[in-house]
Amino acid sequence: MDQKVVYLLPVAIFGAMAILFAAWLARDVLRRDQGTTAMQDIAGRIFQGALAYLNRQYRTIAKLAIVAAVVMGTLVAIFESENRLARGVITGVAFLIGASLSGLSGFIGMYVAVRSNLRTAAAAQRSLGEALIVALRGGAVSGFLVISLAVIGVGAVYGGVYFFAKGVNGRVAETPFWIVGFAFGASFVALFAQLGGGIYTKAADVGADLVGKVEEGIPEDDPRNPAVVADLVGDNVGDCAGRGADLFESSGAEFIGAMILGVALFKASGGDASGKAIAWIFFPLVIGAFGLLCSLIGILAVRPGSTPRDPMAELNKGFYIAAGLSVVSLFVVSRWMLPHGWWQYAFCGVIGILTSVAFVYITQYYTSGSWRPVQTIAEASKTGVATNIISGIAVGFETTGMPALTIGAALLSSYAIGKSVDFPHDAGVSGGIFGTAVATMGMLMSAAYILAMDCFGPITDNAGGIVEMSNQPESVRNVTDALDSVGNTTKALTKGYAVGTASLAAFLLFSAFLDEVARFSAPNPISRVVNLAEPKVFVGGLIGAMLVFLFSSLAIRAVGRAAGDMIAEVRRQFREDPGIMQGTSQPDYARCVDISVRGALREMVLPGALAVAVPILVGVILRWEAAAGMLMIGTIVGVLLAIVLNNGGGAWDNAKKFIEAGGLKDDNGNVLGKGSAAHAAAVVGDTVGDPWKDTAGPSLHVLIKLLATITLVLSPLFI
Amino acid sequence: MDQKVVYLLPVAIFGAMAILFAAWLARDVLRRDQGTTAMQDIAGRIFQGALAYLNRQYRTIAKLAIVAAVVMGTLVAIFESENRLARGVITGVAFLIGASLSGLSGFIGMYVAVRSNLRTAAAAQRSLGEALIVALRGGAVSGFLVISLAVIGVGAVYGGVYFFAKGVNGRVAETPFWIVGFAFGASFVALFAQLGGGIYTKAADVGADLVGKVEEGIPEDDPRNPAVVADLVGDNVGDCAGRGADLFESSGAEFIGAMILGVALFKASGGDASGKAIAWIFFPLVIGAFGLLCSLIGILAVRPGSTPRDPMAELNKGFYIAAGLSVVSLFVVSRWMLPHGWWQYAFCGVIGILTSVAFVYITQYYTSGSWRPVQTIAEASKTGVATNIISGIAVGFETTGMPALTIGAALLSSYAIGKSVDFPHDAGVSGGIFGTAVATMGMLMSAAYILAMDCFGPITDNAGGIVEMSNQPESVRNVTDALDSVGNTTKALTKGYAVGTASLAAFLLFSAFLDEVARFSAPNPISRVVNLAEPKVFVGGLIGAMLVFLFSSLAIRAVGRAAGDMIAEVRRQFREDPGIMQGTSQPDYARCVDISVRGALREMVLPGALAVAVPILVGVILRWEAAAGMLMIGTIVGVLLAIVLNNGGGAWDNAKKFIEAGGLKDDNGNVLGKGSAAHAAAVVGDTVGDPWKDTAGPSLHVLIKLLATITLVLSPLFI
Repeated sequence: MDQKVVYLLPVAIFGAMAILFAAWLARDVLRRDQGTTAMQDIAGRIFQGALAYLNRQYRTIAKLAIVAAVVMGTLVAIFESENRLARGVITGVAFLIGASLSGLSGFIGMYVAVRSNLRTAAAAQRSLGEALIVALRGGAVSGFLVISLAVIGVGAVYGGVYFFAKGVNGRVAETPFWIVGFAFGASFVALFAQLGGGIYTKAADVGADLVGKVEEGIPEDDPRNPAVVADLVGDNVGDCAGRGADLFESSGAEFIGAMILGVALFKASGGDASGKAIAWIFFPLVIGAFGLLCSLIGILAVRPGSTPRDPMAELNKGFYIAAGLSVVSLFVVSRWMLPHGWWQYAFCGVIGILTSVAFVYITQYYTSGSWRPVQTIAEASKTGVATNIISGIAVGFETTGMPALTIGAALLSSYAIGKSVDFPHDAGVSGGIFGTAVATMGMLMSAAYILAMDCFGPITDNAGGIVEMSNQPESVRNVTDALDSVGNTTKALTKGYAVGTASLAAFLLFSAFLDEVARFSAPNPISRVVNLAEPKVFVGGLIGAMLVFLFSSLAIRAVGRAAGDMIAEVRRQFREDPGIMQGTSQPDYARCVDISVRGALREMVLPGALAVAVPILVGVILRWEAAAGMLMIGTIVGVLLAIVLNNGGGAWDNAKKFIEAGGLKDDNGNVLGKGSAAHAAAVVGDTVGDPWKDTAGPSLHVLIKLLATITLVLSPLFI
Repeated sequence: MDQKVVYLLPVAIFGAMAILFAAWLARDVLRRDQGTTAMQDIAGRIFQGALAYLNRQYRTIAKLAIVAAVVMGTLVAIFESENRLARGVITGVAFLIGASLSGLSGFIGMYVAVRSNLRTAAAAQRSLGEALIVALRGGAVSGFLVISLAVIGVGAVYGGVYFFAKGVNGRVAETPFWIVGFAFGASFVALFAQLGGGIYTKAADVGADLVGKVEEGIPEDDPRNPAVVADLVGDNVGDCAGRGADLFESSGAEFIGAMILGVALFKASGGDASGKAIAWIFFPLVIGAFGLLCSLIGILAVRPGSTPRDPMAELNKGFYIAAGLSVVSLFVVSRWMLPHGWWQYAFCGVIGILTSVAFVYITQYYTSGSWRPVQTIAEASKTGVATNIISGIAVGFETTGMPALTIGAALLSSYAIGKSVDFPHDAGVSGGIFGTAVATMGMLMSAAYILAMDCFGPITDNAGGIVEMSNQPESVRNVTDALDSVGNTTKALTKGYAVGTASLAAFLLFSAFLDEVARFSAPNPISRVVNLAEPKVFVGGLIGAMLVFLFSSLAIRAVGRAAGDMIAEVRRQFREDPGIMQGTSQPDYARCVDISVRGALREMVLPGALAVAVPILVGVILRWEAAAGMLMIGTIVGVLLAIVLNNGGGAWDNAKKFIEAGGLKDDNGNVLGKGSAAHAAAVVGDTVGDPWKDTAGPSLHVLIKLLATITLVLSPLFI
């Protein structure tokens, strides 16, 4: 059989298996008990709200994407050196496929998630274990759809273009360069999905809290609060759909970037298109497919008893099983496929897996109440809001330390190992760079599992809201509270994981960009040197770094403005209908949902446009070296600032929870809990952290990768 | 006459003139009226407090500096390739000279500043114009001493080493490389002076405000507040002494770095050590000397009437005169000295001057109450603390935009102009890089004037405090209030200016570092290429960027901790002696001063050690390319984060002032002034901004340059 077909087989099989698995999970969750009618009523509102958002959001994104596809395709057709029309059309079509698949996986995943919350709430009436299973499986639908569509999508686009490019010389090796539009389409949708979702969720959250909790003194998730449904919808929109698009994009871009890097090794191995050498090009996809299989087994391995003592430990168990199987399959796949250095590259992959584990622990250290960072924030709350904020910012800045060292160690070690591999022909630096790419693949092998844990978060949060609003007995609330707290942890972990993969993926995409520059400038290729001592490169880097700050500023401000609208609306409803507070008449939930939707759609445009326009302007005006500097330095700053915002926000949140759990005491040993001045200060800190951790931080992950994919697609313009 | 002597003549003459001018200003200020005994009593306490701090601070720094000098000298002696012992000794001695001069200028400047405050208060009894003159001249003592000692110091060290290096080949060209220890000594002292000063001032300020204003409800500068003297001392310590050390360092490092860059052009012009070619090496110093002259005339040109309508306009007049004269002297000096491209390089200098003007305007836009950014923060204060903080952070991030574009434009244009100059021998990229160096020189020409305006700030602030505490009539208060508000603006401008010069200086120091690397690796010089695509360079950059965040975190946290001690002490005094609040007994001011001193000395060590240790570790472990990546990317991130912290803090401060001035209205048009909830929210924002703008931000300026000088000095270790 043709080697190509052999290699694509596991991609097709495991990809299809993952999709079937997602369908099976969805069926399993959806046919479960739907609880009381009161529960169903509330869940129905959340469902309606989510659909309303998704419809309008994706319609807007679709319009933007079509315009972008046409513009990109045209630009590529104008500036490419050969096969212009074909390259232009393929870029545009690949862009639309990437964009559509990203949208599709977000849509279906969300659809299931906002129906799983009700089943989780119903299951919570019976047992913690059952509720945990329902929430995890509901989340896993999204996780498996997203990653399998990325694997299958890239495989199919590669196959299609390969078939199409019959007349092109060396088409096995050329094809990866032709499909970068797919990655850019995925980034494009991911940017708006994450930005829009992030703005939506925090506008609703901040608005609901500031009027409901602070002004009117009613508790969280109180049905009298008109913004409560919007808040519950928001959790799904920001975390589930947003992070799904983020990781779809990471996977898709990583596959394509790594395939481009594989081309150099394909050539260094002899360049025989029908022999084993093409393994270098297909290796990333196959690893991705095996990752799906490992994650699938991990999910199935989570089988808690009816009252597990530590729900987080159950989820961790599944994660470690998935990670362990990933290590094994890395060695198996490398041994099977790679003509040279199989065990070296398998080790590079293990480095990636270890990095993902390290990120999980580091994030917990910085953002959980059990360690010093969060406790110092709680302690600082005693002297008021100002010291709480000062301390939170200091903690946020501090949290860049360990992740930066971890990323640095992972890059340098995987590069050194990869570079030590001998090839029949000179591989130059490509062997080392491919090592860093394999580390990224290793890190992304558990993406489906991680994403399942992430969507677990909003599902349990929503289940808690449904239970609260339908006045369930305390035992049920205890179940959902326990799950909600686990969900907060998994959401934080996923962000750490996402930023870790983004930083490794960015380095490989940067290398792919240099390969593309060299390819485009053939037969006299420009050298793969981006000299920082060139003022152009330095200025490009300065602008890239500035873009990160400016983009974050716009994202944070967008939340402020959208929340302002929400505050005005909630106040208006309370004022015009006093029956709401007395519980005699129902607030107009739909209107608040609508305000969040409109706010998100309006406010996502400016930062999104900035993120697309600045790299193009830099590349066109200052040329490719400046674009390269912008990409690399923008990535470094973006990664670090995302870490600051994610972890800083998470630490504030958990400092508040630490106080609520009675962890803070005054000098005489009395507990300073809810209602104390320290708690009030911590609530302010939590609110400040909201747009950090749920809007600006996660959007930065996407921005980083968008910078990479946009320069990759448009490199012909920049040379 | 020998060309060298001819070129050093203006350096000696204008340098000496500036020192005499400073002495004359000091005499002029010190013999003025000293006001009432009540005023003298308070001023005496401030003076005592400042001396107590300076004594202990400089004693600690001296110890650290001696250790550092011995260590650096030894390392250089071990790792240098030739003339080891001489290089080692000279590095150590130059380090100590740089360190001592930096300390000396800080000490004398502070000494005069804390005696000028009383004279300014006394003059305020008579007229605004006279008070303005006294404060400006008191500040100018510091400004002129600092810059003239930098000019003369570098000139003298160059001369001494040149004389000493008789047996060395091409010693005119070698000497600049030998004296980099001077710049490192200056950075070293500047780091601790700025860090210690920044921690001191904000510990006192935050402590005084949180207990005095918030808990006890007594006004600012109330004599009953035990921390009030420490607060007044702190303004001098942080702004005057700290910024003085910062700009001493900028000037010294810039002169030496530019001289190193001049060596390449000296060779490209023929390399005749007794001809005009050596102008390239001396040009930077001569420009610095002319800058002193221009600033001197600018200071003398400030001659307001007794009641100037707009005191800021008076100061601006002097600045524009200094800047205009600088433009003229740039052309004159270039025409006289430079063998090639005189008008091109003069234009590069003009670009620098324009950049300094642009920074002044940009800073005002972002931090003054007259424009949108500050007004949005004030507006956001209506919905409480959380929205005030969110909005302030968004503004802080936003303020990176224009400065980054300005720096980018200045670098690219001066590089392009410089590169267009023809030399008899191939100059490579050196002509362009020297263009960026001349832009930096142009920007630094007005350093003495800017520094005078900066020290004007704490002097007028102190004068206000003295007037307040000695119960002067309202008319006197109005005078000092008007000056204080101008002082706030000038302090903000100086920070913008300092960060602008730091970013330009960093690029030239980076280039000097590459020249040093090439020199050290002769006769087979390593190429001047720092390839961002190398994982080592990327990881070095990642660590450099992380260092900036971590250092800021430690600086901010240091303020929090030192302020905590102060809060405890102030509360203790109020509790143990109820007579203080009744005004019957005097609080123990000295004890609060002592707490600030001890806090500052204790807390400055960790971030300082980190700043010194990390670059050495990166250089030693990952070698010179990684050190270069760390330097450049650390600089970019450091500049941007410093801008965020300086301007964000300034904007919060002025949002509070905007509200106090009655600028904020509610929906019905009623003014929300002092005492409103919006004002309370803005006070919290101001407190959060304090460690941003007065501790972490300014310390980052110094960190950036320290990174450059440390890699420059230790490059033999890194290769």
